[in-house]
Amino acid sequence: MTSSVLQPVSPPLAIVILAAGKGTRMKSDLHKVLHPIAGRPMLEHLLQSAARLDPQFQVVVAGHGRDQLETALAGRAVIALQQPQLGTGHAVLQARQALKAFTGDILILYGDVPFVSEATMRSMLERLHQADAPPVVVLGFEPDDPLQYGRIVAEGDRIERMVEHKDATEEERLVGLCNSGLMAVRSQDLFALLDRVGNDNAQGEYYLTDIVNIANGDGRACAVVITDNADEVAGINARGELAQAEARWQARRRQQAMADGATLVAPETVWFSWDTKIGRDVTIEPNVVFGPGVTIADGVTLHAFSHLEGATLEAGVSIGPYARLRPGAVLKAKSRVGNFVEMKNAVLGEGAKANHLTYLGDADVGPGANIGAGTITCNYDGYFKHRTVIGPRAFIGSNSALIAPVRIGADAIVGAGSAVSRDVADGELRLVRAEQLVKPGWADSFHDAMKKKKADRSKP
Amino acid sequence: MTSSVLQPVSPPLAIVILAAGKGTRMKSDLHKVLHPIAGRPMLEHLLQSAARLDPQFQVVVAGHGRDQLETALAGRAVIALQQPQLGTGHAVLQARQALKAFTGDILILYGDVPFVSEATMRSMLERLHQADAPPVVVLGFEPDDPLQYGRIVAEGDRIERMVEHKDATEEERLVGLCNSGLMAVRSQDLFALLDRVGNDNAQGEYYLTDIVNIANGDGRACAVVITDNADEVAGINARGELAQAEARWQARRRQQAMADGATLVAPETVWFSWDTKIGRDVTIEPNVVFGPGVTIADGVTLHAFSHLEGATLEAGVSIGPYARLRPGAVLKAKSRVGNFVEMKNAVLGEGAKANHLTYLGDADVGPGANIGAGTITCNYDGYFKHRTVIGPRAFIGSNSALIAPVRIGADAIVGAGSAVSRDVADGELRLVRAEQLVKPGWADSFHDAMKKKKADRSKP
Amino acid sequence: MTSSVLQPVSPPLAIVILAAGKGTRMKSDLHKVLHPIAGRPMLEHLLQSAARLDPQFQVVVAGHGRDQLETALAGRAVIALQQPQLGTGHAVLQARQALKAFTGDILILYGDVPFVSEATMRSMLERLHQADAPPVVVLGFEPDDPLQYGRIVAEGDRIERMVEHKDATEEERLVGLCNSGLMAVRSQDLFALLDRVGNDNAQGEYYLTDIVNIANGDGRACAVVITDNADEVAGINARGELAQAEARWQARRRQQAMADGATLVAPETVWFSWDTKIGRDVTIEPNVVFGPGVTIADGVTLHAFSHLEGATLEAGVSIGPYARLRPGAVLKAKSRVGNFVEMKNAVLGEGAKANHLTYLGDADVGPGANIGAGTITCNYDGYFKHRTVIGPRAFIGSNSALIAPVRIGADAIVGAGSAVSRDVADGELRLVRAEQLVKPGWADSFHDAMKKKKADRSKP
Repeated sequence: MTSSVLQPVSPPLAIVILAAGKGTRMKSDLHKVLHPIAGRPMLEHLLQSAARLDPQFQVVVAGHGRDQLETALAGRAVIALQQPQLGTGHAVLQARQALKAFTGDILILYGDVPFVSEATMRSMLERLHQADAPPVVVLGFEPDDPLQYGRIVAEGDRIERMVEHKDATEEERLVGLCNSGLMAVRSQDLFALLDRVGNDNAQGEYYLTDIVNIANGDGRACAVVITDNADEVAGINARGELAQAEARWQARRRQQAMADGATLVAPETVWFSWDTKIGRDVTIEPNVVFGPGVTIADGVTLHAFSHLEGATLEAGVSIGPYARLRPGAVLKAKSRVGNFVEMKNAVLGEGAKANHLTYLGDADVGPGANIGAGTITCNYDGYFKHRTVIGPRAFIGSNSALIAPVRIGADAIVGAGSAVSRDVADGELRLVRAEQLVKPGWADSFHDAMKKKKADRSKP
Repeated sequence: MTSSVLQPVSPPLAIVILAAGKGTRMKSDLHKVLHPIAGRPMLEHLLQSAARLDPQFQVVVAGHGRDQLETALAGRAVIALQQPQLGTGHAVLQARQALKAFTGDILILYGDVPFVSEATMRSMLERLHQADAPPVVVLGFEPDDPLQYGRIVAEGDRIERMVEHKDATEEERLVGLCNSGLMAVRSQDLFALLDRVGNDNAQGEYYLTDIVNIANGDGRACAVVITDNADEVAGINARGELAQAEARWQARRRQQAMADGATLVAPETVWFSWDTKIGRDVTIEPNVVFGPGVTIADGVTLHAFSHLEGATLEAGVSIGPYARLRPGAVLKAKSRVGNFVEMKNAVLGEGAKANHLTYLGDADVGPGANIGAGTITCNYDGYFKHRTVIGPRAFIGSNSALIAPVRIGADAIVGAGSAVSRDVADGELRLVRAEQLVKPGWADSFHDAMKKKKADRSKP
Repeated sequence: MTSSVLQPVSPPLAIVILAAGKGTRMKSDLHKVLHPIAGRPMLEHLLQSAARLDPQFQVVVAGHGRDQLETALAGRAVIALQQPQLGTGHAVLQARQALKAFTGDILILYGDVPFVSEATMRSMLERLHQADAPPVVVLGFEPDDPLQYGRIVAEGDRIERMVEHKDATEEERLVGLCNSGLMAVRSQDLFALLDRVGNDNAQGEYYLTDIVNIANGDGRACAVVITDNADEVAGINARGELAQAEARWQARRRQQAMADGATLVAPETVWFSWDTKIGRDVTIEPNVVFGPGVTIADGVTLHAFSHLEGATLEAGVSIGPYARLRPGAVLKAKSRVGNFVEMKNAVLGEGAKANHLTYLGDADVGPGANIGAGTITCNYDGYFKHRTVIGPRAFIGSNSALIAPVRIGADAIVGAGSAVSRDVADGELRLVRAEQLVKPGWADSFHDAMKKKKADRSKP
């Protein structure tokens, strides 16, 4: 007799995400699951985690705000409509049509429980295929305060029964193991069990939870997988809970940034985006906000009150305080952006400086160039954007307006206070300056006249 | 026999607020009760709460800093002078003259205990008129740590005795019920009891608390009303306690804003004013500060690091990051104020934009107008302010100075870098631009000369 | 028999600071002990505390990153090299050569334990000279959670034995008294004991702790001094711990500022430097950051989002929001700096104002002067800095560029939008303004043409 030990092949997977609720407590016109955390809709966080399990199908069950979901999903998941909403069991049933050709595991998730980890989802699926083959695997959790959660009465990891909080006895309420609502079920079991769920309860709803008790009634014990991180199954139903989820996400990300070798002087005042990339020996002063799309190389210093979005900072760059970098800002190595400076769709060359009160939009600044205080690139004519190109080592005098399209040559100098509308050649001085009108004594006379006028006005 | 159940008519009410203390621990030239919380003096918070009880008289007992109180009250309350300060009982006695024509209930409050709620005050007054008619109703509280507070020994809600902490026995110190100092007393009882209070104690002071023990000695049991919110009777005697009170106020207000349908990405970094009005589906990024007088309509986005005061933002407006709106700033629907932009006494028309490095003061900007980067309205001549009027859809080129009084017409264009001192007609282009002086090679020569000079200077 | 009671003379003191570790967990190219807290390297905090004990010698034991330490110490301490690193006992031995001429007390500190207080260090030294003359005094602490710390088994303050956590019995692990590693030892004992320390342990290292057990074995009982502030011996080995130490430092400093009479509206959002000086009745709004070298007099208001470094603010000054004061900024009494204003190496005279979007660099502004919005001092020509001098009560119109070196006279007026390159006399009006080109209807035609162009472009 030959024997072979084979690594079991993972069965095909479908994800069903429930997102049909009204989200009334959010008091919002935006669909609940589209509210962002760390700059990304909560549904998107969930989809990205689920995607790592390589599902064959993703079905989002929608009800209210279906249009918003369709726009957000852009075809990346099938939308099943639940109309009217008759409970969670009824919601999952709406996915039957979308999954009629599917045989395999079904993982039931919730759009407003976006941070369940890949590892937890894998644990649920693995449990489904252990030797005892439970028909349903429920994700349980043990909150500090069980509140109104439904309880799971279990013996070991086999569920004896699920109890809604309001139906629970005093003794059952002492059980600390709660039902997250998340489940893993094989496709052949799921819809068969759901067909048997009734709505004979106070709300007149079909509860997904009932499939556990029905299967148990058939003598097929269901299993519970318990997460040791109750936060990952925290539902987000109100703006306060949204803020808490954001805070938890940020706290984790800050710890990670520090562990990776960044100094955060006041970690609680740095807000990362879901996709922020930070190098080593980066120093972040208090109050820095990252929007999406930021990459920070090693040895960068971000001074206080800086705001970055879609920006790339190479090694040794220093920005702020009060630097505002918008999408398309690229700061080459050792360049410097100072206070009250905005960059958008602009490249600042190696070692170049724009230190004060400047707007660089649609611009290419050469290496070593010096952009004086109060410089404005006039990139917009009300209809189209135009580009400003500044050569290596050029010196732009303070308070200048560079009227694009315009090109300033290498080593060129633009005199302070100039509005430059024509190209400046390499090594050239461009000076736009009118006559200085001198009126000796005029100011003294003006002061006298105005003081008199003020005095007159204040008379009765 | 006929019986009729009548809703009892509330008796007339007088409020006595004690505010005579030196407030030494504040280390301030400003009167303690005038230190602001949420942008409003703490005394003002208390007066506004008390005003909801519709009192006939309000008496503030002043000592140190009387002038500051008079200015702040501006006649809204009678000021009774306590000079010298001989204790709380003595302080209340100073109100006798002001209340000589008054018969009714007297509520004794403290200027440095500003957040006692209307509901709590009402409870105290109601208790005063229950069947057993206690001569004095004391507000008690149960702090986590009773510290040095005086204790209330009570049986049910009837007070057996009041004990100063220093006089308390070990057993009495185990009592968790503490004396807030706030009291409700009928006018006919109050001054009669106070006349019997002596100063035979270590401090040589007349203690208000003694009236409870005196009444008890007369066989007239006093009553305690217990607040379940110890924070509302927290006294503010030092800047640290001021900061704690501010933090508690802000925490409540943030929760309220979220419950009302605003997203606060980082609630702990948003500071509201006492009168801030916020709509639904408003998003507030981290670090936004509200001064007084701000109204925010629905669907507004406030980006990070914005500072608002006396501003009105209509629906769909977006501001910041780094927007500074000062009193009289009105942003019409869907208008946009960007980074490093200041507005004061200025209206930005529907859909108009002022996105970068701009000062709009004493200005009317028409709908759809575009204010270029670095635009300054020159509204002040050193003596008077003047107005700038910008027409619908006008385009103000970057780095322009608009020298008020000046009017820019509808659809007009002002060229970048222009200082405009005369009106611009509808549809007109105004261009203020001097000759561009071109000096080929000058910059190269300058660089050579300066490099030589630098080298010379660095020689020994 | 005569008796005299003499105040014991403090014996000479040497400090040995261990700083040879790799600091791997910091993931930094900067030496661990040079990472700053409150703007000062942690080693510097420790050196300054130790300096108050007036040591004869300071020896820093270096290994990795020796060059950085040499630069930072600049001769203020002897550097002893530990190469290779064979444990703490071995590290201290490297100081023998530097201390060969020294007889007295030796205090052993750690560069990554920077906040041990002067008082604690004095307690250790005093204990060393009490009647029982312990050969070694160990600093113990009692953390909330003893974790992996080595334990001190003691009877009273006499140490029975030191136990590494990994060698501890269950019973010993219940001991809450932990070893900080800090020690005081007489010079004659220290090196003699260290010579007897072996490396017969799992790590093959020479442990400093062993000298305690060796001395005990000689029948000379060592003593423990216990700090009641476990935070002061917290080691800083990772960026997260660095952030925690910063937070503790800031929390203490904020409390001190409030106790001294400053209002911090949101204390948790104010970051002080190690040397910030703050007066009385100073108000600090949320989000203010202090770099080194700032002095704030009484009655100053710092509005939100301000950033100060090397600045001196006299009484009654008001700055911000969004004021950025850089080194050499001096604000005379009652002067005012507003939003988006940067000052560097510049003096603002009494009562003078620079309220909006301004850069004042290398400038002297006279009392009562008014600097208009968007004013830029053009202080740099790419090679040298030049000075701008503005006279008393001068009025600089908005959006002006003052091209240094330049002098504006008393009471003089500079017209808005002027680039001033030559001196302006007292009482003179200087107006730099070109012709206003008027092109009636041009804008209307432009709009028509551009709209057509846009429409054309959007065609297929």
